[in-house]
Amino acid sequence: MDPVIVGLQDRIEEYLKQLDIPVQPLSLYEPVRYMLSLGGKRMRPVLVLLANKMFDGKTETAFPAAAGIEVFHNFTLLHDDIMDNAPLRRGKPTVHEKWNADIAILSGDAMFVKSCQLMMQSPISAMPAVMNLFLKTALEVCEGQQMDMDFEKAENVSIENYLEMIRLKTAVLLGAGLGIGAAIAGAAPSEVNHLYDLAFQLQDDILDVYGDAAKFGKQVGGDILSNKKTFLLLTAINMAKGDVQADQKYWLDYSGSDTKEKVKSMTAIYDKLNVRDVAEIKMDQLYMDALAHLDALPLTINQTRSLRDLAAMLMERES
Amino acid sequence: MDPVIVGLQDRIEEYLKQLDIPVQPLSLYEPVRYMLSLGGKRMRPVLVLLANKMFDGKTETAFPAAAGIEVFHNFTLLHDDIMDNAPLRRGKPTVHEKWNADIAILSGDAMFVKSCQLMMQSPISAMPAVMNLFLKTALEVCEGQQMDMDFEKAENVSIENYLEMIRLKTAVLLGAGLGIGAAIAGAAPSEVNHLYDLAFQLQDDILDVYGDAAKFGKQVGGDILSNKKTFLLLTAINMAKGDVQADQKYWLDYSGSDTKEKVKSMTAIYDKLNVRDVAEIKMDQLYMDALAHLDALPLTINQTRSLRDLAAMLMERES
Repeated sequence: MDPVIVGLQDRIEEYLKQLDIPVQPLSLYEPVRYMLSLGGKRMRPVLVLLANKMFDGKTETAFPAAAGIEVFHNFTLLHDDIMDNAPLRRGKPTVHEKWNADIAILSGDAMFVKSCQLMMQSPISAMPAVMNLFLKTALEVCEGQQMDMDFEKAENVSIENYLEMIRLKTAVLLGAGLGIGAAIAGAAPSEVNHLYDLAFQLQDDILDVYGDAAKFGKQVGGDILSNKKTFLLLTAINMAKGDVQADQKYWLDYSGSDTKEKVKSMTAIYDKLNVRDVAEIKMDQLYMDALAHLDALPLTINQTRSLRDLAAMLMERES
Repeated sequence: MDPVIVGLQDRIEEYLKQLDIPVQPLSLYEPVRYMLSLGGKRMRPVLVLLANKMFDGKTETAFPAAAGIEVFHNFTLLHDDIMDNAPLRRGKPTVHEKWNADIAILSGDAMFVKSCQLMMQSPISAMPAVMNLFLKTALEVCEGQQMDMDFEKAENVSIENYLEMIRLKTAVLLGAGLGIGAAIAGAAPSEVNHLYDLAFQLQDDILDVYGDAAKFGKQVGGDILSNKKTFLLLTAINMAKGDVQADQKYWLDYSGSDTKEKVKSMTAIYDKLNVRDVAEIKMDQLYMDALAHLDALPLTINQTRSLRDLAAMLMERES
């Protein structure tokens, strides 16, 4: 992997470890420390620092905001886990499991405050731009999560609305990371916007949904059984006609006990409809769009290399 | 009541009504609108505007922050109601009752973001001071709520810790209101601090605990039965000696069905210990401390009159 990215990941990990988080009340701040200790790729802070580097910023000035976006991201995971009733996060018990839901709500709130305080440590010249972009994005993330919950109960979800949900729930925060890093380096608003628009394309959760073959195969089972409204299912519903449509409807309404048969039949329908090809074409298109946004910036290939490497890594391609 | 205060309450109510809150997703923003429509004294925004007036600020410049502190306050009520399992808020169903807990968590988060956005609309010269005071206070409010939850399960709570919990959970936000209003008017940091310290004394929740006779009598029943760690009970535990202490311990441990007898006996103990006098003396002392902080400011009696009126109103005295 790109040594620049690995180097930044290490420095962020170090910075997060020595973050000034109060001790008391223990039951408020222990879960905060716990969440931040669970690790992860630290992708959002890396984006802040990379964008900052691209515009020749001083890396030190971008660290508080980089940490702030990671703390914010973990706050959203903490609250989402309550809503999703998730037992595990990165293989460890979630906060509401290890402590309880009340503590998870409140320590999440405290993390959100902390993330704002870290953002406020950005250089004063960039502070309004950083804060406004950050808060706009924070509200969008809430909207995305609400749409996700709404969709679970909805009869029909259009692919357009599904992609908008994914954009809000996860992509905008990646974009904000880039925009914030650039703003701290003194980039022009139009350049910040270009980086912000890059977001959707770099977004990793959507890749989880229709990524490589291994993930594709692995995900399908559980998601098919619960009729989860993934990009795959929504595309299949959208494309199915005639007999295939009737067959699909039968299995979606199926409430019998032959789960193996349901997975097998639905997978056969996906194959018949070439849903996987559609997903891959979409993936290629998003990748190309992303690179086009990078090309629009007044930067040399050299300056954007690490970001290209990161994009390629996210796409699980050769860099 | 002071016509200045009433006038400001009306203008805030108006300002809150025309607040720019998005429509979609409905399930995210309807609860936000609902919470803000439940009314209340709008005490915190009044404090922002009064402090701003005292330092000759332009009232219009303080309205976004005034609204911001009210939105923040309502966010804390929303999340507290989930944790307290409260069915009603100002006589109406709480958000988690009317919708559900997930929606209450998420629309609370959105309100917090919105409150930060409103704070950020303060004049740029005051913005760092406003935001830093606001965020510091927001974290303290989380700490106070956590202490409150911890105390419910604790064996012993000292009066000192109880008062610290009350200070964090509610008083600091009143102080922040005053400090933010003054900062927007360009007051010096030392003046902002004096106003911030006024907080504890103006704090109305503590008055609810050991306020006038009517409240005193009304509260005692339910609180006594649940052994709720109020200022009254903690004072009584602290003061009781010998037979009274033994009698008190008996009723605190009592698990029988004669609830009337428990209330009667505990009330008799409170009377014997003069707990109510202690409460009133504490109240007087806090009131005097508050006025001393006001006197320390370089302001005329005329400039601080409305704030004195408000303090008197909160103390339910003649102004």
